[in-house]
Amino acid sequence: MAIEIRSLAWHGKGLDLIDQTALPHEIVRLDVSDVETLIDAIQRLAVRGAPALGASGAFGVAIAMLQAEREHWDAAALDDAIRRIRDARPTAVNLAGGVDRVLPFVAQGVDAVLAEAEAVVREDVAANKAIGAHGADWILDRVERRPLRVLTHCNTGSLATAGWGTALGIIRELHARGVLETVYADETRPLLQGSRLTAWELDQEGIPHFVQPDGAAASTILRGLVDVAIIGADRIAANGDTANKIGSVGVALACRDAGIPFVVAAPQTTFDPATAHGDEIEIEERPESEVLEWGGIRVAPAASRAFNPAFDVTPARLIDAIVSEQGVIEP
Amino acid sequence: MAIEIRSLAWHGKGLDLIDQTALPHEIVRLDVSDVETLIDAIQRLAVRGAPALGASGAFGVAIAMLQAEREHWDAAALDDAIRRIRDARPTAVNLAGGVDRVLPFVAQGVDAVLAEAEAVVREDVAANKAIGAHGADWILDRVERRPLRVLTHCNTGSLATAGWGTALGIIRELHARGVLETVYADETRPLLQGSRLTAWELDQEGIPHFVQPDGAAASTILRGLVDVAIIGADRIAANGDTANKIGSVGVALACRDAGIPFVVAAPQTTFDPATAHGDEIEIEERPESEVLEWGGIRVAPAASRAFNPAFDVTPARLIDAIVSEQGVIEP
Repeated sequence: MAIEIRSLAWHGKGLDLIDQTALPHEIVRLDVSDVETLIDAIQRLAVRGAPALGASGAFGVAIAMLQAEREHWDAAALDDAIRRIRDARPTAVNLAGGVDRVLPFVAQGVDAVLAEAEAVVREDVAANKAIGAHGADWILDRVERRPLRVLTHCNTGSLATAGWGTALGIIRELHARGVLETVYADETRPLLQGSRLTAWELDQEGIPHFVQPDGAAASTILRGLVDVAIIGADRIAANGDTANKIGSVGVALACRDAGIPFVVAAPQTTFDPATAHGDEIEIEERPESEVLEWGGIRVAPAASRAFNPAFDVTPARLIDAIVSEQGVIEP
Repeated sequence: MAIEIRSLAWHGKGLDLIDQTALPHEIVRLDVSDVETLIDAIQRLAVRGAPALGASGAFGVAIAMLQAEREHWDAAALDDAIRRIRDARPTAVNLAGGVDRVLPFVAQGVDAVLAEAEAVVREDVAANKAIGAHGADWILDRVERRPLRVLTHCNTGSLATAGWGTALGIIRELHARGVLETVYADETRPLLQGSRLTAWELDQEGIPHFVQPDGAAASTILRGLVDVAIIGADRIAANGDTANKIGSVGVALACRDAGIPFVVAAPQTTFDPATAHGDEIEIEERPESEVLEWGGIRVAPAASRAFNPAFDVTPARLIDAIVSEQGVIEP
């Protein structure tokens, strides 16, 4: 049973987003029809996930064009607004990619931009469905145990994409094929995308799952409780090095030690041929308060500092398969 | 500057404990003079840390003896109470070890038991000071960079011991020798002993530190930001396999991959020659609510389950040094 979760949809004058910071308790919808609101939604992770950011960037250009018309901006002001959307978060290549994809249509007017943005959405959903099939085929070919026990990190589902999901798309496909036993979902500190979002999507689909602390991932793998780990990606360098949510490379190290496959799932829009190696990828550092506080309440001593990189880079040598809509690459 | 934090002290009729669940916001002292209160304090981690549990077990026998006298228990009831203290948590060998150490003195009366329990405390502090010196010597001999950047996991300081600390004792010693740049303290989900307790002890000593999500540890190490990782232990098997707070083995895997030393610090009381290998160590699984809730508020969906093992086992092959009061073993 595939349910229809749409992380974002155009409603005629702006973008309708699920505010992912309110999940799983409430489904709050944001009506985003100006540039500042969009940038704020991106930066506070109301919308997040590399493919969903790609679609947000594409629609963001239309939002900027409509706002420019309403508020009589000159061309320089519009360019500046589009640039600020493009740069709102640095690590996922998809955000800039979504903006760049629709830019050639700006001269033809907002309807042309929107048509291209809708194409980004359609193509992302189609890519994710293809990723699910390719990934499930590859895993069932390589892993003997049935039913499968899968570990995943962060959220890569419908919420993180235009629909269906990347790593979670493969998990949905394995579930649909009747070969999935359970999912270990890392909670994904500091913002708990695993506990709040992945668990919510799994629950919606009736997929059995355990939420676990990120620190448990390595031992769950080493204890033989997991058959394969599947993660998404925010940027894949030309050599296969993959930036993804902080904690991913620790999962990869454990998989290598345990001899189980570590699989990256991402559409071609996440591949960045302009970046040769992972060490060229800019790693976003987010506010210290995300680590040091909880619900506005300080956890650590007042004087303590935090180190809060949002992503890490898994070197290609630790990746067994990169699954895209075009098939599977084994780095 | 070494400050005097005493996690526990005998006050004449019972044990005075710092309630570690209230730190760093408040220093709440618990007056523990009956067996149920002690077991509750151990199980909800008001007192925690393998060596501190050892001392608690030793004093716990005295608490049980005094309560037996007050409440006219028979010998079977006293034996049962002592057994329940001994089994209050399964993974750290020190708790049972502390109980067993004073048992031969029960026949001589409570003063003899208390004298032996005080010896446990004195020896633990002395062992920790020796661990600090041996560990600092070994690290300064093996690691070239000055000043040093150290990563640690969970809390192994004065709070976790009878005083000074094991892994944190080495960190204190490195700081005292003027060769410590900074400490990366993993926050240590689910109960945040790193963020709440280690950061508090480091702050009290004026040691620069960053709290980081547990998932960041591997990449902080792989990015070359750390020179050595030092952790404590709850039980060390005869072959060197080491049980410690969940997340430890992930740190060890990253250290091995990065080629930096992974050091375990623990007194001889944590060595368990009766356990041949790590896979014989019972791993405590704690309540799911520790992962799924925060301050009583549910984070994950209502139907989600959690996997919450409190410890993991680092195989000896990933450990570069085990530091005890007797010196350094290189497994």
